[in-house]
Amino acid sequence: MYKGTNASDGIGIGTAVIVEEAELVITRREVGDAQAEVSRFKGALEQTVAETQKMAEDLATRVGEKEAEIMQGHMMLLSDPMLTGEIENSISNDKVNAEFAIETVCNMYADMFASMGDELMQQRATDMRDIKVRMQRTLMGLQSADVSSLPAGTVLVAKDLTPSMTAGINPTNVVGIVTELGGRTSHSAILARALEIPAVVAVNGLLEQVKDGDTVVLDGSTGEVYVNPDTEIKTAYEAKRDQFLKEKKELEKYIGKPSVTKDGVQVEIVANIGKPEDVDKVLQYDGEGVGLFRTEFLFMDRTSMPTEDEQFEAYKKVAAAMNGKPVIIRTLDIGGDKEIPYMGLEKDENPFLGYRAIRLCLDRKEDIYKPQLRALLRASAFGNIRIMIPLVTCIEEYREAKALIEELKKELDEKGIAYKKDIQVGIMVETAAASLIADIFAKEADFFSIGTNDLTQYTMSVDRGNKKISYLYSTFNPAVLRSIRHIIACGREAGIMVGMCGEAASDPMMVPLLLAFGLNEFSMSASAILRTRKLVTEYSVSELQEVADKAMSFATTAEVEAYMREFMEKMNG
Amino acid sequence: MYKGTNASDGIGIGTAVIVEEAELVITRREVGDAQAEVSRFKGALEQTVAETQKMAEDLATRVGEKEAEIMQGHMMLLSDPMLTGEIENSISNDKVNAEFAIETVCNMYADMFASMGDELMQQRATDMRDIKVRMQRTLMGLQSADVSSLPAGTVLVAKDLTPSMTAGINPTNVVGIVTELGGRTSHSAILARALEIPAVVAVNGLLEQVKDGDTVVLDGSTGEVYVNPDTEIKTAYEAKRDQFLKEKKELEKYIGKPSVTKDGVQVEIVANIGKPEDVDKVLQYDGEGVGLFRTEFLFMDRTSMPTEDEQFEAYKKVAAAMNGKPVIIRTLDIGGDKEIPYMGLEKDENPFLGYRAIRLCLDRKEDIYKPQLRALLRASAFGNIRIMIPLVTCIEEYREAKALIEELKKELDEKGIAYKKDIQVGIMVETAAASLIADIFAKEADFFSIGTNDLTQYTMSVDRGNKKISYLYSTFNPAVLRSIRHIIACGREAGIMVGMCGEAASDPMMVPLLLAFGLNEFSMSASAILRTRKLVTEYSVSELQEVADKAMSFATTAEVEAYMREFMEKMNG
Repeated sequence: MYKGTNASDGIGIGTAVIVEEAELVITRREVGDAQAEVSRFKGALEQTVAETQKMAEDLATRVGEKEAEIMQGHMMLLSDPMLTGEIENSISNDKVNAEFAIETVCNMYADMFASMGDELMQQRATDMRDIKVRMQRTLMGLQSADVSSLPAGTVLVAKDLTPSMTAGINPTNVVGIVTELGGRTSHSAILARALEIPAVVAVNGLLEQVKDGDTVVLDGSTGEVYVNPDTEIKTAYEAKRDQFLKEKKELEKYIGKPSVTKDGVQVEIVANIGKPEDVDKVLQYDGEGVGLFRTEFLFMDRTSMPTEDEQFEAYKKVAAAMNGKPVIIRTLDIGGDKEIPYMGLEKDENPFLGYRAIRLCLDRKEDIYKPQLRALLRASAFGNIRIMIPLVTCIEEYREAKALIEELKKELDEKGIAYKKDIQVGIMVETAAASLIADIFAKEADFFSIGTNDLTQYTMSVDRGNKKISYLYSTFNPAVLRSIRHIIACGREAGIMVGMCGEAASDPMMVPLLLAFGLNEFSMSASAILRTRKLVTEYSVSELQEVADKAMSFATTAEVEAYMREFMEKMNG
Repeated sequence: MYKGTNASDGIGIGTAVIVEEAELVITRREVGDAQAEVSRFKGALEQTVAETQKMAEDLATRVGEKEAEIMQGHMMLLSDPMLTGEIENSISNDKVNAEFAIETVCNMYADMFASMGDELMQQRATDMRDIKVRMQRTLMGLQSADVSSLPAGTVLVAKDLTPSMTAGINPTNVVGIVTELGGRTSHSAILARALEIPAVVAVNGLLEQVKDGDTVVLDGSTGEVYVNPDTEIKTAYEAKRDQFLKEKKELEKYIGKPSVTKDGVQVEIVANIGKPEDVDKVLQYDGEGVGLFRTEFLFMDRTSMPTEDEQFEAYKKVAAAMNGKPVIIRTLDIGGDKEIPYMGLEKDENPFLGYRAIRLCLDRKEDIYKPQLRALLRASAFGNIRIMIPLVTCIEEYREAKALIEELKKELDEKGIAYKKDIQVGIMVETAAASLIADIFAKEADFFSIGTNDLTQYTMSVDRGNKKISYLYSTFNPAVLRSIRHIIACGREAGIMVGMCGEAASDPMMVPLLLAFGLNEFSMSASAILRTRKLVTEYSVSELQEVADKAMSFATTAEVEAYMREFMEKMNG
């Protein structure tokens, strides 16, 4: 038995297919016709750009925007005239082969980026080495490992998954993934969870232990991996797998059931989505609406601003598919940390405290915000769309956005274009400022949705992507819990709906607290809806008040978590 | 009359001295003995490094750490082996003169940094161009403009002030500064305020209007500049200058007076300092203590960690000089945004939400935190030292630091080394989390000091250095004010001292609110102490309650500010 990091829940039992890329050996060769060699380079560059673009599109469609972004970094480098110019110069002046010129120039830049010592530059160094190898493989006529047509029942075994492999995995045939490198937040892990493939990562010395054709058993919840286990173990894990799948099936009973507590308090369990296609899953898992439709996908992976009509089509598609159920669409939540060259955003020193989201939109009404709001209004004629504004910190921002919407409504009236006259305009409550003046916001906004990921980040002054201080990032922190309770109380007091679209909304340990606080709407990834509905039906809000009071009496995160864990264990018998 | 940006208060009347550096013309020259040329380069490099180091030291002593930091960026580039190596290669391989090799290589890197499009890289590009010119001037035997020995009564006129000029200004002889470029936050402006020299910056076309020997009159509060004005104007401004200096003198009456309101509420008005020498000014302006002694200076501008003894000497010096008055010393508040190569800190994606301050110190107890805490304890035998912990977000951090201090006390007891047995250990309240659970902290911490700069930044999710969103950064924001009022109330409820060491503590519009909220201690730059004491004596806390209640009833920053401005105007007749 080998132990790795649990990366994606479920049991995988199948046949190992090792996916490995050989190291390239690059030698210096004199070329007679430098001009021809430059053309050779340009051909390879073009092909690599095209492949990268295709991968980005595939990733965006099949896996998610987050994965697709990785390829944007590659695109940026591939289209940098300084890099390609220097490679061409090297070929022409030194009369060397393209592979060698690429090796020299890319390594020089990669080393330089790496020596700069900040994280972004480290990532650029990695990206630089990636594109180097990809251009060289193209020149040398070597195929990248193909994972799109693996046989059914495959457990994919690799040192690590590169983005290009990621783009190709077929989840129907791959029953498990095991890698030697990576962590829970590595590309392979994020991918596996998105595709619902059981996965274990960071298994030390894995590739020395497994060969093609071995039987591999893995438990993605515990991180355990067995290579050619005896029948006993294999049978035990087959039972475990069946149990896992059975429980998954159990939950399907909750399809069509109301999300109501034992004492009759009804809540809404809705979904977070990232693109229109995600609606299929929301319907499959019986989401009662969409609590957060992120609109960033419309702006990523492209070279120009999406048109109003393109946006309109995307919003309309979701609104129509949800057939009258509420669809909360968040306006553009983007900043200088994203690579969107056509927007011309500068990189901020502290992007999470920077020029982004509503700040950017109100500053760029003509080219960004008005087209998006107009598209949202027009689409609202086709379903129950609600508009949600991210990152608000002061009421002026809400008022300015609201005024803009009213102005656009008038324009539409004049042109006789239909829209939902009483469209709701609400806010994400995700900053300390918005929490502190939630009572002021509640008087004007039509609804709240608490973004716990950012709220926790800003309350704790902890970048949620920074591993060195992740121990401080917890929604169970007493300060964060107080903030959440306060926001819900302010919203309820004013009689508006209060939802939550951060990860906490589907955390089984958090759900009883949120019920006690009075949360109306729980928004989460579609796959968590039924599990959460089951949970809700097992509680009485009135009985939970005492639990919440007790939880709120502690001074530390550890005490809160320990208490809630104990409570959960008692509940589960 | 010309209009620029007001950069440093006061009236300057004197004789113009134009300080200008000529553009260099660099031509390519073949060198016969490349080896000798490399040596020539190395000599110039060495000299530039030495000069830079000296400038950094001068700046740190005479102006401040912030200015000295500028030179750290230069030092980093000058000591980068990749840069110097490439220049040497260029001289050896291309057989060109050092000036030209420097020109080519530095421009290449500067262009590359500039093209990367983020702010940090832009700064590096500027630094690269600066060191390029300085090395070239050294090679060509050109002196930098010398501003250390200007005649008395000089108004310094320049396109812009470079850090190297900055290092040299003698404030006794320079009565005013006017520059064509720059802004309120440019080097020249920061410097002028630190040196209390009246200054106007960003005067369009200045150098075409002024010549050496002209009489220049400038008003650093309004941004007005006159060149060779008629007698009437000159006389008027002489009167204005005298009035300004008279009011400055007026304030001196408050030396030795208690800081007590009309209705007998006594507060403490204390100083923020950045290095031991600053104590002179605190004593000069009759500070009742030190409310914030930043210890970062000990760690900057050097190549290895300061020893415990070095720290001890610095802390002892301040404690002894303040002679029993409270000296609050903040433990190291530094993160990956500072260039301190010997600490080996990585640059965080969001440094203000990153690995820094108490987070870093608790993670590096042996090499950083214990030596500092031991030095603080040992120095506490020589005065009324209090220890302050920055950036706390949860009580565990306070407890861990406190336990460490207790452990070190025991060690000192065993060794028979003296320290203040009942030394107070308090916290900076500067995160949203600490504000939300201020009641929990108040039960354990010995005092609070509200850091309004960071508290505002974190509450509003606004990087306070980001100009694009600075309109959101205001301590008068209702959310920030609520947070401040809440923190003070929690501290007062628990009976501990609550101070404030952010810029708001000396803001005339904020002082009445802080008095009404019940703040005990106001910490500020020494030069603001007497002005603030005068203000305090003009108010009754009981009469201010109504003002505070009214101010807190508004929904927007603009309304609060307008109301407070109106109130101030009424007060001033």
